[in-house]
Amino acid sequence: MAHMANETGLDKNHANFVPLTPLSHLIRAREVFPDQEALVYGDIRRTWAEFHDRATRLGAGLRALGVQPGDVVSSILPNIPAAAEAHFGVPLIGAVLNAINIRLDVDTVAYIFDHAETRVVLVDSQFIALAEAAKQKSGSDLVIVEVPDDVAGFPATGRYPLYEDLIADGDPAMPWHMPTDEWESLSLNYTSGTTGKPKGVVYHHRGAYLNTMGTAISWEMSLRPRLLTIVPLFHCNGWCHTWMMPMLGGTIVCCRDITAKAIFDAIESEKITHFGGAPIVLNMLVNATEDEKKPFSHQIRVFTAGAAPSPATIKGTEALGFTVMQVYGLTETYGHMSECLEQPDWSDLPAAARYAKMSRIGVAQPMVEGFDVVDMDSREPVPRDAATPGEVIIRGNTVMKGYYKNPEATAEAFDGGAFRSGDIAVRHPDGYIQITDRLKDIIISGGENVSTIEVEGVLMGHDAVNLCAVVARPDEKWGETPCAFVELIEGKTATEAEIIGFCREHLAGFKCPKTVVFQELPKTSTGKIQKFELRKIARAL
Amino acid sequence: MAHMANETGLDKNHANFVPLTPLSHLIRAREVFPDQEALVYGDIRRTWAEFHDRATRLGAGLRALGVQPGDVVSSILPNIPAAAEAHFGVPLIGAVLNAINIRLDVDTVAYIFDHAETRVVLVDSQFIALAEAAKQKSGSDLVIVEVPDDVAGFPATGRYPLYEDLIADGDPAMPWHMPTDEWESLSLNYTSGTTGKPKGVVYHHRGAYLNTMGTAISWEMSLRPRLLTIVPLFHCNGWCHTWMMPMLGGTIVCCRDITAKAIFDAIESEKITHFGGAPIVLNMLVNATEDEKKPFSHQIRVFTAGAAPSPATIKGTEALGFTVMQVYGLTETYGHMSECLEQPDWSDLPAAARYAKMSRIGVAQPMVEGFDVVDMDSREPVPRDAATPGEVIIRGNTVMKGYYKNPEATAEAFDGGAFRSGDIAVRHPDGYIQITDRLKDIIISGGENVSTIEVEGVLMGHDAVNLCAVVARPDEKWGETPCAFVELIEGKTATEAEIIGFCREHLAGFKCPKTVVFQELPKTSTGKIQKFELRKIARAL
Repeated sequence: MAHMANETGLDKNHANFVPLTPLSHLIRAREVFPDQEALVYGDIRRTWAEFHDRATRLGAGLRALGVQPGDVVSSILPNIPAAAEAHFGVPLIGAVLNAINIRLDVDTVAYIFDHAETRVVLVDSQFIALAEAAKQKSGSDLVIVEVPDDVAGFPATGRYPLYEDLIADGDPAMPWHMPTDEWESLSLNYTSGTTGKPKGVVYHHRGAYLNTMGTAISWEMSLRPRLLTIVPLFHCNGWCHTWMMPMLGGTIVCCRDITAKAIFDAIESEKITHFGGAPIVLNMLVNATEDEKKPFSHQIRVFTAGAAPSPATIKGTEALGFTVMQVYGLTETYGHMSECLEQPDWSDLPAAARYAKMSRIGVAQPMVEGFDVVDMDSREPVPRDAATPGEVIIRGNTVMKGYYKNPEATAEAFDGGAFRSGDIAVRHPDGYIQITDRLKDIIISGGENVSTIEVEGVLMGHDAVNLCAVVARPDEKWGETPCAFVELIEGKTATEAEIIGFCREHLAGFKCPKTVVFQELPKTSTGKIQKFELRKIARAL
Repeated sequence: MAHMANETGLDKNHANFVPLTPLSHLIRAREVFPDQEALVYGDIRRTWAEFHDRATRLGAGLRALGVQPGDVVSSILPNIPAAAEAHFGVPLIGAVLNAINIRLDVDTVAYIFDHAETRVVLVDSQFIALAEAAKQKSGSDLVIVEVPDDVAGFPATGRYPLYEDLIADGDPAMPWHMPTDEWESLSLNYTSGTTGKPKGVVYHHRGAYLNTMGTAISWEMSLRPRLLTIVPLFHCNGWCHTWMMPMLGGTIVCCRDITAKAIFDAIESEKITHFGGAPIVLNMLVNATEDEKKPFSHQIRVFTAGAAPSPATIKGTEALGFTVMQVYGLTETYGHMSECLEQPDWSDLPAAARYAKMSRIGVAQPMVEGFDVVDMDSREPVPRDAATPGEVIIRGNTVMKGYYKNPEATAEAFDGGAFRSGDIAVRHPDGYIQITDRLKDIIISGGENVSTIEVEGVLMGHDAVNLCAVVARPDEKWGETPCAFVELIEGKTATEAEIIGFCREHLAGFKCPKTVVFQELPKTSTGKIQKFELRKIARAL
């Protein structure tokens, strides 16, 4: 019997099928929001019509330097206008953007240049020496384009072609190279590489487009939001937020140096409505001096990710007036993919119970198709008992294409038909997921699993603790024991015995640190604590 | 040279590619919004967990009746819960939903049954006689499932299997049949057929999914909106709004009979935040009695489409407290695809100038890729001079697959690489598009084009005019002249001479009606005036 599954003559054509790409948002913004402020930095203010013009010129300039579709253009840029412009100017000629972490060492940058086969790199004047050394080390013939920053006081070295000359010479009428397949690569993001060589995570146009739509809904953004770029644009492309802003007629307010003063100043002068940041940034705001803090009366929605915010962090951030929600994701998922959406009845809970719920990574954001915790062996979903640990897995269109030139790692990441996050979690009866540990961080003490995140959450509740991290310390009797590294709040003191005693009040004995080390914690560029460094110290104790 | 365009090993897999479908929103809603109110009708209140359960049972019930993937399930339902449930219950077994207009005649419904090869039809008890007659006429062996409505007082006839029995017997644990290709057909919507046989417009899962995301952004919906279903769900699937609501944890408030009292009552008792409706519905609200009207203090966003709202309509609707925006689209574009987004500086304009801007169809909604006005011959964009007429064309992923079993009409609609709307428009210097006429409605009088929409806009400004339509009347001297059909506001009077005199104050002489006929206007089920009926009358004058 004939039915619609067999119907022909209803195929894709140029009218009814257009590959999804965030580039479309900028094309539309030029029509819909031409005079709306697109970007602010210092005394620079540009509209979406101007942004469109400059992005096109940038693309034309890169093409003039020989960049072809499929080539990689790297950047070593803090959150300055060029970083935002590159998110459109590079892909609009079919090239792939590789935003490199400005805090990496020469060897790693050289490795990336080689691995990505970078053709051109856009480099902020502050990081020219890094780029030069990495280029030399790599033996690459890439072209360095220098981006001086007058606002921050980093003038041009005079040794390289200038970004603004590229823009000035570029043809603003150059036709764009739109993707013919939405699966085409859009960007290449190297994981920060806490262990081993960095892996190149590949994003496609489809995923970035869908991420912009789902994020706008999840973040309850109305039109014309004002986003402060605290999340580095080299970190999951700033969680894809730059690509989202033209869709909403929003304004990107560039923040080069992340200080409490800069953030509060921008909130006041630029009426910021949204920003993302790690809990460490929120702590910085909470612990800002009274001089630095500025009051505000409008709603500011904050996505926090990178680590579970402690109850103290949430409490302090809310007390300042922010609306805060934890989101969760990885470089491999285009940044955030889950949200700890507050349910209406949470507001009736005692504060501690509400903070406990808010410290979970929650549920899937709107663009995500599968989000679950599965048993490590059977790969079946764990029971929703808030107790049985398993691995967080993710399915959906905002999961990476794979790791560039690394089919083994790609196959491993997708083993079992979903992306394996490497995070250990439990699932609560209400479906919300809570991370208990990184697969490689978990401590096994006397045969018992100790969630380092649970112990850290308790430590953060201590009055004197500013930041902490718990790692395994080898132990003859127990196999491993928890070892706590603690940064104290300036002017406060605590002893090892006091800290351990505090933990005993809140935790089972086997979970309490047996050792406490007071020191500044080593962090990655994105504010994540480098536990592998701490493990080295713990092993040597 | 190797570059990323040639990269292999980064293919689609089950982890990183999931076909887009609005079904995903309901799967997620069961996780994220299980206890949130999904649907309200009379004293029926159901959560998203319950909605998910019932939709699954419906799918299982339909499968038990023999419905296979690709089969068509029709419905003849007003906006009652079953209509919303069918939007998920039918596609979740891979079947295609064909929501039939309840106001069609027997012959047309019989034609649709045959053309769509309907396997099962869900029929509200009020329309059982229509379905029976149409089935008999068509010779189809389709199965009628009866949906009685206790709330509205339409009991079961007892002659057919009951919808609630289908639900009760269905297995709520039945696995869903998710699309393996997002291009698979989701629904089949027959155009109302003002001329010729109805054409079956085919929607796919991809388009409906993208429409839900773009609409939520365009309509500035935060989470948990409360939607009143004034737009019939058989009209472009209610502009796809039913599929959007689970994504947002929103509530569908069913409105079976569209009266001013019912709407104001729902606004008050259900705290409605959004609804769509033709300008005729807005006029009904404006002209409601003081008894019917109810004050409200929260924001209610109204999409209006189907015809340009007159200045008087906008003014009256805003005076009631509604936030109103014209949107535009066709059955072929999944409902609305453009929005008359208000620019910040419009609020400074004199009222008349602002209303004039608000009566344009505007700019592309976020999910739309191409929206332009092109010369009828060259197919090149017309100048943005607010004067040169051309045809509105549309490109994007929310353009239909084509017309079912009608490759000729499909090819004609997509001629030139974009969907041809058949609407004539001009483009303003700011890029906003304004419809001047339907291609087939335009009047040519003495060689001059007369926009019937322009003349109707003037007529609507007359104190006594409730509704009007202008069509061509054959004329020996001029070829055609404008003929106005006018419905007066109850209790008000006007003469032909007064109406023509009023037009002369506002229009060039050749644009003024030469004839005015006072009568009730014939309308389609969706409130569109049936100009072909009026043309018959004008020809016979």
